[in-house]
Amino acid sequence: MIQVAVMGHGVVGSGVTDILLKHTESIAKKVKEEINIKRVLDLREFPDSPIADRFTKDFNDIISDDEISIVVEVMGGLKPAYDFVKQCLEKGKSVVTSNKELVAAKGAELLEIAQKQNVNFLFEASVGGAIPIIRPLHQCLAANDIEKINGILNGTTNFILNKMINDNMSFEDALALAQEKGYAERNPAADIEGHDACRKICILASLVYGTHVYPESVHTEGITKVTLKDVEYAKAWGGAVKLIASARKNGDKQEIITAPMFVNNDCQLSNVDGVYNELLVRGDSSGTIGFYGRGAGKLPTASAVVADVMDCVLHKDERRNIMWKDGNGDNVLPYETYVHAMYVLCETNDSTASFAKANEIFGACEKITMEKAPSNELAFITPELSYADFTAKCAEFAKNADVKSSIRIAKI
Amino acid sequence: MIQVAVMGHGVVGSGVTDILLKHTESIAKKVKEEINIKRVLDLREFPDSPIADRFTKDFNDIISDDEISIVVEVMGGLKPAYDFVKQCLEKGKSVVTSNKELVAAKGAELLEIAQKQNVNFLFEASVGGAIPIIRPLHQCLAANDIEKINGILNGTTNFILNKMINDNMSFEDALALAQEKGYAERNPAADIEGHDACRKICILASLVYGTHVYPESVHTEGITKVTLKDVEYAKAWGGAVKLIASARKNGDKQEIITAPMFVNNDCQLSNVDGVYNELLVRGDSSGTIGFYGRGAGKLPTASAVVADVMDCVLHKDERRNIMWKDGNGDNVLPYETYVHAMYVLCETNDSTASFAKANEIFGACEKITMEKAPSNELAFITPELSYADFTAKCAEFAKNADVKSSIRIAKI
Repeated sequence: MIQVAVMGHGVVGSGVTDILLKHTESIAKKVKEEINIKRVLDLREFPDSPIADRFTKDFNDIISDDEISIVVEVMGGLKPAYDFVKQCLEKGKSVVTSNKELVAAKGAELLEIAQKQNVNFLFEASVGGAIPIIRPLHQCLAANDIEKINGILNGTTNFILNKMINDNMSFEDALALAQEKGYAERNPAADIEGHDACRKICILASLVYGTHVYPESVHTEGITKVTLKDVEYAKAWGGAVKLIASARKNGDKQEIITAPMFVNNDCQLSNVDGVYNELLVRGDSSGTIGFYGRGAGKLPTASAVVADVMDCVLHKDERRNIMWKDGNGDNVLPYETYVHAMYVLCETNDSTASFAKANEIFGACEKITMEKAPSNELAFITPELSYADFTAKCAEFAKNADVKSSIRIAKI
Repeated sequence: MIQVAVMGHGVVGSGVTDILLKHTESIAKKVKEEINIKRVLDLREFPDSPIADRFTKDFNDIISDDEISIVVEVMGGLKPAYDFVKQCLEKGKSVVTSNKELVAAKGAELLEIAQKQNVNFLFEASVGGAIPIIRPLHQCLAANDIEKINGILNGTTNFILNKMINDNMSFEDALALAQEKGYAERNPAADIEGHDACRKICILASLVYGTHVYPESVHTEGITKVTLKDVEYAKAWGGAVKLIASARKNGDKQEIITAPMFVNNDCQLSNVDGVYNELLVRGDSSGTIGFYGRGAGKLPTASAVVADVMDCVLHKDERRNIMWKDGNGDNVLPYETYVHAMYVLCETNDSTASFAKANEIFGACEKITMEKAPSNELAFITPELSYADFTAKCAEFAKNADVKSSIRIAKI
């Protein structure tokens, strides 16, 4: 019998206990041992739970119980999750987490402790919810040099953008709807400012390129400045605005960024629905591989957590060799050097003259024609150029027209 | 140093040696041992190969070499692959294969020998080429009851159907083009008759449901009877004709089938491009998860083979616990009981009367309206009914109209 503790009984935590209780037998058959939830840590009371007697508010009931060999952390946030997880690993307990903030901020350190203690620290559920991503990237694509990964990794912002694209809803209305449906939190900053997607691409880049990437090293833009106009021009151009988290190899270093981008309709990422996530990975041998599914939600995320718990049981005397070294951001190239074509929207009294100016400054641009566009609007796509170069040239262009928006064109 | 032998130096085999030679260092870093190709078995000569001196025509050079601990089988077919693989496993060598025919025909037996000998028998590359499918299904979705899997698992037929759909090409012309491009073999029967896709769904169903499913137990229809008319009516209906390999749970048993089906445009499988594959898996907790990528080709398939070899090295003292028991087909429900709505195309002198008859016989049908359809044609979709029921009712309907085609509507 394997004794497990679950720290946190929120959305994901209650999903974990639900699955472990519902599938006790079939799971035991697969891992050849019964998994028992010995403790659940939460500050709240759950008198109606079928395992109400196992709830505790005291972390000591877990850390000092030597029978508990696997601890699930689904509290979220860094405090006290980081401290608790560290103590568990140091005590020789394997830890499974869905906490992307924790892995993005402390992954290298926690993996090192796990290695020293010869226990597992697994986090499949931290990226893409139920979608198998960490393990396939680590194992199945192991024979590849990963050239780039691009993904829609945050369902909340994808839902909001889709409402803007399909229902012509403003950002504010779409956000309110997402909150109403429970897709967005009361304080939606982590989602709409891009931090959540950034944490996930940090985890994936750390895994794939072997050096921890901290969110502070990654240029991150959210979707709060994306307007309905931008969405309409993206459509007229033949694409959609999506919040893209991207990491690509450039020599020995990486270009990593999270930002709204124009995605061409040819690309699978352009039509990812609602709260779904999709990740495209390009390996030198495999070509492009796609992973698609629900990136969040109680049972999808919980099922990924439970699969990691099962993996811990199957490999209890052996460490899974997921590992990366610590990093100081040196491996992340400055975002000003990343090369993209750029969408520019401006207001001008003379759009012919302004477009001529754009061509003079940026090189040959592609004008976006949209039915019923006001005559004082001009939208165009520049040739590819570095962001630094774009900023300088855009400042010059802004002398001739009132620049309203600029958005990168995704290179997927 | 791990000594490996590669049996077969065709498309995939040469890809395997290419990757192992090109990535020697990075692979050694990942698995913490160098992997050396000691022998390559092929009846042909390859004097220009950088490892020409390691080629042999004699299987004894592999089976009697105790230094060789991992054997890659990429010969394809059953003879002599089955005999060679069996001997290797019995001699205590781990085997990695991309041979779906072998796994579908002999998987249970070979897995049992591997278990007895405590070695690995891995076959990630046998389904979906470079797309990670076997391992994610086995590990990451382990906490789920898999309700159904539906996929486009054969790139050749998908290419042919897409040419019919997008370029109005006849089946024969599209097949000839596929052969010209090297996507289809001279003898394309295994692809176009559906046997290749059937083998793959057999492997997946065996893995997911735990009992070996032999291809003989699975009703299999190819795409040779799909006409341009059918393709056009599918489009008018709001979908596309695709070759779908499907397995779904029904109580303790499974419904497994490979057949061309109408797929609604809402479904991701409707717009899978060219030679790509996509698999959709529905778990009770995870919801629908998608896996997408190149299902065939030299390097994509070879990269999956090499990843399995690396996994063997990392777990050389331990068996991966992929395992299923032998089966006699009892777990596969008869295809006549599977319930689908059906597309029917017929010729009739009085389409109004025939459609009334269809409604009388099948229940309320949905007529497919297509611009410029000849007046003597009638196409409609029946309500859902078992195939046995459909066949009986269709025979009755055929007294009133000349039935030209009938195709299942996919339930994905």
